[in-house]
Amino acid sequence: MTYQLYYWPQIQGRGEFIRLALEDAGAPYRDVCREKRGEAQLMRILGPRAAFAPPALKAGRLLLFQTPAILHWLAPRLGLAPRDEAARARLLQQQLTIADWLAEVHDTHHPIASHLYYEDQKREAKRRGAEFRRVRLPKFLKHFAEPEKRFSYVHLSLFQMVEGLRYAFPRAMRRLEPRGLAALHDRVAARPRLAAYLASPRRIPFNAMGIFRHYPELDDPRRM
Amino acid sequence: MTYQLYYWPQIQGRGEFIRLALEDAGAPYRDVCREKRGEAQLMRILGPRAAFAPPALKAGRLLLFQTPAILHWLAPRLGLAPRDEAARARLLQQQLTIADWLAEVHDTHHPIASHLYYEDQKREAKRRGAEFRRVRLPKFLKHFAEPEKRFSYVHLSLFQMVEGLRYAFPRAMRRLEPRGLAALHDRVAARPRLAAYLASPRRIPFNAMGIFRHYPELDDPRRM
Repeated sequence: MTYQLYYWPQIQGRGEFIRLALEDAGAPYRDVCREKRGEAQLMRILGPRAAFAPPALKAGRLLLFQTPAILHWLAPRLGLAPRDEAARARLLQQQLTIADWLAEVHDTHHPIASHLYYEDQKREAKRRGAEFRRVRLPKFLKHFAEPEKRFSYVHLSLFQMVEGLRYAFPRAMRRLEPRGLAALHDRVAARPRLAAYLASPRRIPFNAMGIFRHYPELDDPRRM
Repeated sequence: MTYQLYYWPQIQGRGEFIRLALEDAGAPYRDVCREKRGEAQLMRILGPRAAFAPPALKAGRLLLFQTPAILHWLAPRLGLAPRDEAARARLLQQQLTIADWLAEVHDTHHPIASHLYYEDQKREAKRRGAEFRRVRLPKFLKHFAEPEKRFSYVHLSLFQMVEGLRYAFPRAMRRLEPRGLAALHDRVAARPRLAAYLASPRRIPFNAMGIFRHYPELDDPRRM
């Protein structure tokens, strides 16, 4: 089975959470929208009724949207989750909290609307960013401070959160990052297939279009 | 099996999506936090590591958080979802889009931080509310304009979205509500067990503490 991933080709975004699972498992997949005429192929599977937004995964006849739903379905097939239903539900719970966290990261730079430019909501972004760093970021980091021992796709997603947050909020993360989460990050980065992926051109660099953006004015103030 | 629901006792909130499933199925359940010393019981199952936020469902030894994860696990046991894995994944996809929608409704009145008062983010709320009504609300309504024929827990959640949005944004909803979604709302409201629930004191009225709040300044301007 060759999986087909559909996602915006310019950013890591939500698609990256699925890429990490496919890459870590060494699963055969096509990153369809990064091929020739890829965006046209993305547009074909979207449409107001079929889907709300990418990413999408095609697996045989199944076309599935929503990152946590895709990972929930995919992970047991890749050996990244147990088959037991209660254990899978608990992983889904954690992935949903990561999705909430990611949405809050997005809203630090887009607190008014995702369809408006950052520059047009910069004042509100500064306020939301400050509250995020003061209250929400510590709360999420504390919640995930001691990740479960048994490896699963949730660990890959937590690795990505740490990577992204270090890029977007380097000063706040130096202050707040729990030791357990940093250790998880390093263990995941050292997994051979994942390390090879991260060093490859398949890994899109962080940039100013993605969900994790580095705007110094949204990070902790620089020390004097 | 008597299910135990844990959620803030003063509001419908996210817990209501689970209540609707339990009530429609006629499942035996306790709404734990609405019993004596209920909030103390809620505090006992929370805590920074165990959970991020309610609702929670306890079913035997399983303690599960996150509304879409709870519904995904619960619905086949209540006859509100098929057992087929691909079909369940597609329902989860839809429920996740409803969760995204609900989070955007919440952020119309709390665009800066959920831990600050509405009054302290009212200016930003007016801006976010206007963009929500102009772009996001029509997009979500269009996406769900023709619900699937086969009844599932997703229909109950869509009913709740329509109920809540009519309460919070009555003028915008009169302008935007798709016929297919209004018809779904009426079909769900007429289901005997659900109708009995809605008429009972178990249904908490909408209020100014919940996710759906009626602030006239966030709705369409009144016609002259």
